[in-house]
Amino acid sequence: MSSNSASGSASTSEESNKVRVALCQFSVTSNKEANHKTAADYIDRAAKQGAQLVVFPEIWNSPYATSAFPEYAEILPNVGDDQCPADNSSSSQLLMDLAKQYGIFIIGGSIPESDDGKVYNTCLVYDPTGKVVAKHRKVHLFDIDVPGGITFKESDTLTAGNSLTTFPFHKDLDIGVGICYDIRFALPAMLMCQMNPKCKLLVYPGAFNMTTGPAHWEILQRGRALDNQCFVLTVSPARTEPPTEEGKYPHYTAWGHSTIVSPWGDIIAKADEKESLVVCDLDLDRVDEVRTSIPIRQQKRDDLYQLTDVSSETL
Amino acid sequence: MSSNSASGSASTSEESNKVRVALCQFSVTSNKEANHKTAADYIDRAAKQGAQLVVFPEIWNSPYATSAFPEYAEILPNVGDDQCPADNSSSSQLLMDLAKQYGIFIIGGSIPESDDGKVYNTCLVYDPTGKVVAKHRKVHLFDIDVPGGITFKESDTLTAGNSLTTFPFHKDLDIGVGICYDIRFALPAMLMCQMNPKCKLLVYPGAFNMTTGPAHWEILQRGRALDNQCFVLTVSPARTEPPTEEGKYPHYTAWGHSTIVSPWGDIIAKADEKESLVVCDLDLDRVDEVRTSIPIRQQKRDDLYQLTDVSSETL
Repeated sequence: MSSNSASGSASTSEESNKVRVALCQFSVTSNKEANHKTAADYIDRAAKQGAQLVVFPEIWNSPYATSAFPEYAEILPNVGDDQCPADNSSSSQLLMDLAKQYGIFIIGGSIPESDDGKVYNTCLVYDPTGKVVAKHRKVHLFDIDVPGGITFKESDTLTAGNSLTTFPFHKDLDIGVGICYDIRFALPAMLMCQMNPKCKLLVYPGAFNMTTGPAHWEILQRGRALDNQCFVLTVSPARTEPPTEEGKYPHYTAWGHSTIVSPWGDIIAKADEKESLVVCDLDLDRVDEVRTSIPIRQQKRDDLYQLTDVSSETL
Repeated sequence: MSSNSASGSASTSEESNKVRVALCQFSVTSNKEANHKTAADYIDRAAKQGAQLVVFPEIWNSPYATSAFPEYAEILPNVGDDQCPADNSSSSQLLMDLAKQYGIFIIGGSIPESDDGKVYNTCLVYDPTGKVVAKHRKVHLFDIDVPGGITFKESDTLTAGNSLTTFPFHKDLDIGVGICYDIRFALPAMLMCQMNPKCKLLVYPGAFNMTTGPAHWEILQRGRALDNQCFVLTVSPARTEPPTEEGKYPHYTAWGHSTIVSPWGDIIAKADEKESLVVCDLDLDRVDEVRTSIPIRQQKRDDLYQLTDVSSETL
């Protein structure tokens, strides 16, 4: 697997098998500066509650609309960078500064990224020094057409990424990152977890909708958790109602319901559709307990079926 | 994939995209003849309700106990056979006769199979002429140890099978078969469905327990359905209470809850824990609708990850 990551370490967690996480389910507006202000407020509150890892929703600085992505897109730093590009990187600069200021990891949900004439749906991860330790470009674009439900086509303006992403959080924990529609695909999640026993947490910033949200959001998370006997964590934007007057961009109604699922497949924390800061401790020992009691990792039949990594790109 | 199947055809279904299935959730006892009588009664009732495909639970002719399996094991016919071995094949002879008598497909749950000094947990499938069209030996043995929950070790007396199993039901439908613990493994299910677009139904006779049943039975089925956008059908024995006096074999308390999940991941039929005959029509067009509206089969990234069949055995 080409892992979009550099070394990073959560020094405060190395003596503990628990990680305190914060899920920032806030309302996203078309005003980027207002979104920045909200973001800073959530991180401040999360850090004051002792969160070591703060997670943002998918597309948190821009409306979730294909026509908006190119306009809101920023030039982003790369893995290993501790500086942002001088121009048009205000959202990544903000999270970089806040990660360093509070000494926390931030999985920065996603924002539209502009690179070489293309636009990506990109997640950056910052370590407590502010350095970029992972960069994930959404690998599976959200192109669906459910009659009577929802039609959306990210590929109208977005380009897909070409690699899976894990990063080291501390010596006993690696974290896998996907974005929204990526969660529908069992194989990349299994690849991240099965090749690397330290991958005990999968994080998916996502913005499911009012059709697939109630039908699939929870089942997909619990399925990924059971397949891999790991924690699964999702963060959605809060739900906002369509404006009474037509706006510049089509309104997208997010399902909300940011969630944490345990390695046993049960839901240990869940927001409703409204704005919410969810803070929760993940007991990593639980991963080992479940993997020992139901040892599917050893029982899978490599003589009958094999999952292989055939990627080559590293960001 | 080495497919344990021969040609079979449900002639009554070729003009229809619906298949009427019957799930036979009955109580299994230590009296093999009594189990045979129950089996014949369920098939008669299912056939009279127009079922084209009747499915039995895991280990329906024997107590579910590792010490019982060798004692109840039978010599089984092979794929293509329309006769059973002369001796010690009474359970398979019964289903073969009933399939032919009623002109229906029977997925015969599973029974212990004796072959060459080994014992397998084996499912036979009979077509409407009584011919054996598939034979599945449980590939992933149920060896788990959940502290405070359940400990079971099938491998004490059972040997695992070495191939995945699909069989043709009619020209537009192949059916994949697994047994119980096989359902925990995402990859073989995906292999059956992704390599073969006609595989639109996965059937798992199973006997989950009072620990993993409430926690995982439903989630695993819905997960397999969403991963593969296919119907998933499970049949459990009915729950029986432990006897007041200690019996010859340890009592196993089955979870029950035989279920049908749609390709959209919703539950369309479900028994409780008691004896039940569930008859339901599966609309195969729904598989195509879901696969078209959320086209993950085309969107998966073969350039990043690949699932391959490396098996070689054919029964």
